[in-house]
Amino acid sequence: MSTSSSTHAEALTQISHIMEPIGRKALEAARVLAQTDAATKNRALAATAAALRAQSAEILAANAKDMSSARERGLSGALLDRLLLDAKRVEAMAKGVEEIIQLADPIGTLIAEWTRPNGMTIQRVRVPLGVIGIIFESRPNVTIDAGALCLKSGNAAILRAGSESYHSSRAVHACMVEGLKVAGLPEAAVQLVPTTDRAAVGYMLAGMADYIDVIVPRGGKSLIQRVQQDARVPVIGHLEGNCHVYVDRDADINMACEIVKNAKLRRTGICGAAETVLFDKAATTQMNAVVKMLLDAGCEVRGDQDVQAVDQRVKTATEEDWYTEYLDAIISARVVDGVDAAAAHITKYGSAHTESIVTSNSKTAERFFNSVDSAIVLHNASTQFADGGEFGMGAEIGISTDKFHARGPVGVEQLTSYKYVVRGSGQVRPG
Amino acid sequence: MSTSSSTHAEALTQISHIMEPIGRKALEAARVLAQTDAATKNRALAATAAALRAQSAEILAANAKDMSSARERGLSGALLDRLLLDAKRVEAMAKGVEEIIQLADPIGTLIAEWTRPNGMTIQRVRVPLGVIGIIFESRPNVTIDAGALCLKSGNAAILRAGSESYHSSRAVHACMVEGLKVAGLPEAAVQLVPTTDRAAVGYMLAGMADYIDVIVPRGGKSLIQRVQQDARVPVIGHLEGNCHVYVDRDADINMACEIVKNAKLRRTGICGAAETVLFDKAATTQMNAVVKMLLDAGCEVRGDQDVQAVDQRVKTATEEDWYTEYLDAIISARVVDGVDAAAAHITKYGSAHTESIVTSNSKTAERFFNSVDSAIVLHNASTQFADGGEFGMGAEIGISTDKFHARGPVGVEQLTSYKYVVRGSGQVRPG
Repeated sequence: MSTSSSTHAEALTQISHIMEPIGRKALEAARVLAQTDAATKNRALAATAAALRAQSAEILAANAKDMSSARERGLSGALLDRLLLDAKRVEAMAKGVEEIIQLADPIGTLIAEWTRPNGMTIQRVRVPLGVIGIIFESRPNVTIDAGALCLKSGNAAILRAGSESYHSSRAVHACMVEGLKVAGLPEAAVQLVPTTDRAAVGYMLAGMADYIDVIVPRGGKSLIQRVQQDARVPVIGHLEGNCHVYVDRDADINMACEIVKNAKLRRTGICGAAETVLFDKAATTQMNAVVKMLLDAGCEVRGDQDVQAVDQRVKTATEEDWYTEYLDAIISARVVDGVDAAAAHITKYGSAHTESIVTSNSKTAERFFNSVDSAIVLHNASTQFADGGEFGMGAEIGISTDKFHARGPVGVEQLTSYKYVVRGSGQVRPG
Repeated sequence: MSTSSSTHAEALTQISHIMEPIGRKALEAARVLAQTDAATKNRALAATAAALRAQSAEILAANAKDMSSARERGLSGALLDRLLLDAKRVEAMAKGVEEIIQLADPIGTLIAEWTRPNGMTIQRVRVPLGVIGIIFESRPNVTIDAGALCLKSGNAAILRAGSESYHSSRAVHACMVEGLKVAGLPEAAVQLVPTTDRAAVGYMLAGMADYIDVIVPRGGKSLIQRVQQDARVPVIGHLEGNCHVYVDRDADINMACEIVKNAKLRRTGICGAAETVLFDKAATTQMNAVVKMLLDAGCEVRGDQDVQAVDQRVKTATEEDWYTEYLDAIISARVVDGVDAAAAHITKYGSAHTESIVTSNSKTAERFFNSVDSAIVLHNASTQFADGGEFGMGAEIGISTDKFHARGPVGVEQLTSYKYVVRGSGQVRPG
């Protein structure tokens, strides 16, 4: 008992020696960034994009190292694909940075302004959050995406890459540092934690409240749950996207087929993919068409008795299925008694991410909008539009299913706070 | 060891039997409130105000019980004053509720709206946060103020009153329930935890994440720190208001005296009261006048050597003083080398609440605004304006020194979130 706790104490001391200077430097860099104009930040981003292209070979060599240890450790094909970089993906990173340059700089913008009867003017002005900690797993491009979004929004970033992507992340991070140098900004504006020691994650979550203003976890369910459990600072995260399409009695058959097909099958691995389709009990024709379309497209359908009656290829859905985010070519399907029952199902089983109703009845759509409390509700459109870029908000760091601070796509504007600036001429408060 | 932990387990079971149904009922009520129109909510508030007036005698009798046990337990004069109700204070509560009726209903308002190139329209619409837990100490009026603000903003409230104000809070809460009944709203929209067991606080903080969306602590430093330490849900809180006035070389002498006097002495016990005055080293004339004014007004001044040289009544400030929120007729005072040094002092010692600069030089004021990262920064105005009502935002549940979600005064609008409502005509996502 005492041995293990003294070992624990030693490990904590060791990791604090690494993390404390990172925190202090991030705080200093954040103060500089808060005052940095848009042109300088964009210069750093442009130089980062240039460095990514110039150092493509080094990045791919580092990635090859990560890939070979990942193969040795027997990582799954999906994980290997997330980890893999090639020339096209490096170019996509550079293009992503250039897209962030095009976004409007949120910092210093006036959110609201009014004058009080005593003559004081009050402004609500956008400011950065400060220092953002990003904890991610296998995708090395998060280093660039998250780093660039934080920089654009005037925040310092502390990035903690998963061990599997460590070499790739280091190589990519070097390009970011080069960009910062070119623009004369502190290198500590975007730092990569220089260890794969898992204690660094715990320390970021619970030991750095004096430095880190918010934590953004990017990864699987177990990472997000750990972060929400252990964090002593605010978290922007989404647990999962258990998204629904409700096909109403007044749905156009073709539209229902097209939307369900796109919502489920365009890409099955993204959080905006539909996982359950609900059919109004008076939408039998639409149900028959949609279920056969899904089955013919190679999608596994797990249905209740009514849905199973449509086609013998439909499997049996269990209670567990309604809660499940498959992220695969599988969908659960159920018949419900109208829009209210659809909303009740979504409230009970959903994750408050994104839900769509297909109907030509706008009153039914409004009822759906009012009774479904999810970050995004759509009428006659695919759930796969749940994405900052598709919303016209630009790149995003994730889709928040929290209601606190930011909900839905989290882009540059959602990575900010505000302050009140009051101008007077000697006013004092009476009474 | 095993006895104490089984006792702990029993206590937890007991408190969960009380708190779980409260959580479930709050969640159901929140769903109703989210759909309730402004007129119905205002009817409930008007009936609450009427009930407060009608039941004034019962409220005062309940308060007398609390006062007598508080006196027996030897509570301090300041605490007794916070606890005390009289006819005037009950009337003030009723008036406070009527002021909340006058505020615009934030729910359902359109925050932003745009159309995508594919024809989809996207709206960002204001919605309630859901269920708000309020943990407070001695002031029984928090039951009404917080309950009414939550109701107006469409949120269900779970109120946990301190044991010292328990009877008063129950009597006041009964009026709120009466108001809800009159309007046909669920009584569980505003619930008061029916026990003074301190385990209820811990349970709200860590055991009710499935029901409570955000916790608002209202009370002293130790309560707020406990909440920030133990909470497993988001918290809106402020730690303290260690507010500063910086008197610049270009400050008008009379204005400096008036503003410092008001900022420190109008009311010494509120979070917007100034605790430190900083003098530009080139503002000797202003310093002499301000320091003598403060001393003559009966304020204790604790200064550095330069300030002590002004008047022999000035006491010696220690390092500890710069960190201290006196909430009393005491002020610390220091000479600094211009606006940058003032900002550096505020960054090091302040609590990021509210700071004011007195100067006739608008460039210096802008420099102060940019380099001081506090929720509220003022130019030529008293720090005591830090208040939702004074800002024209209406009643507030507190002043947030957090950057996350809400900063500064937290009124009805800050108790909301938003959702995205997307209307299409069959759009699916390409690619």
